[in-house]
Amino acid sequence: MAEAFTIHSIGVIHNTDDEVRIEIYPPYTAGLLGLAQFSHIYVLYWLHLNDTPEARGILQVQPRKNPANPLTGVFATHSPRRPNPIALSRCRIREVTLDGILVDQIDALDGSPVIDIKSFFPHDDKGPVKVPDWQ
Amino acid sequence: MAEAFTIHSIGVIHNTDDEVRIEIYPPYTAGLLGLAQFSHIYVLYWLHLNDTPEARGILQVQPRKNPANPLTGVFATHSPRRPNPIALSRCRIREVTLDGILVDQIDALDGSPVIDIKSFFPHDDKGPVKVPDWQ
Repeated sequence: MAEAFTIHSIGVIHNTDDEVRIEIYPPYTAGLLGLAQFSHIYVLYWLHLNDTPEARGILQVQPRKNPANPLTGVFATHSPRRPNPIALSRCRIREVTLDGILVDQIDALDGSPVIDIKSFFPHDDKGPVKVPDWQ
Repeated sequence: MAEAFTIHSIGVIHNTDDEVRIEIYPPYTAGLLGLAQFSHIYVLYWLHLNDTPEARGILQVQPRKNPANPLTGVFATHSPRRPNPIALSRCRIREVTLDGILVDQIDALDGSPVIDIKSFFPHDDKGPVKVPDWQ
């Protein structure tokens, strides 16, 4: 039933006070061709500090670590504790360079392994969006 | 430099003419608590037919397999051929059940392994969005 797959880091996030730079490793930089035509990207990165059996076994949390928030399934949150510690951030591109991407900001720890970059297209679905009160 | 990580499928996508159902396997269904308070989710799934050394080695494609489109880096596309064959779809929730989620539609093959579900929050960034002509 459950299957295992292998992923490899394709880069690393440098998140400092001065800049946010998504370094792409040399074997993968050819994948950046044409990215500068977009304003935004999705960054998928590995929550490396939560890649432990304990953190990966947690299925319910109080969102934003706020004890006032109701116990909530991790799939209803963006908690770093989840079965597969993959994070997803949408970022505005500042500049695409030969070896990576400068972005406005990202909610990622310095040194987080990057596992994929995807261009962002506006969503077609214009219907109403609903979220819970705890946000 | 490049590191390897292991992910496990947490469910499977049933995509038929009748319905689109994201089955979550029993060990993970506790992670669905509270998800019904959202209207939309991100579904991360594994592009299992492209989990080959050949497909994972492709770094540039013609988007939408259209020969009129310029050769483009896979990180600027949503091509299923990419170093880590992870797909990302935003879906509208129809119903959250005990063992999964019914959604309006998804651009995924029947039988695709699910690797994560994340609740969708509207983006704060209200700036202009730019995409290339080839879309």
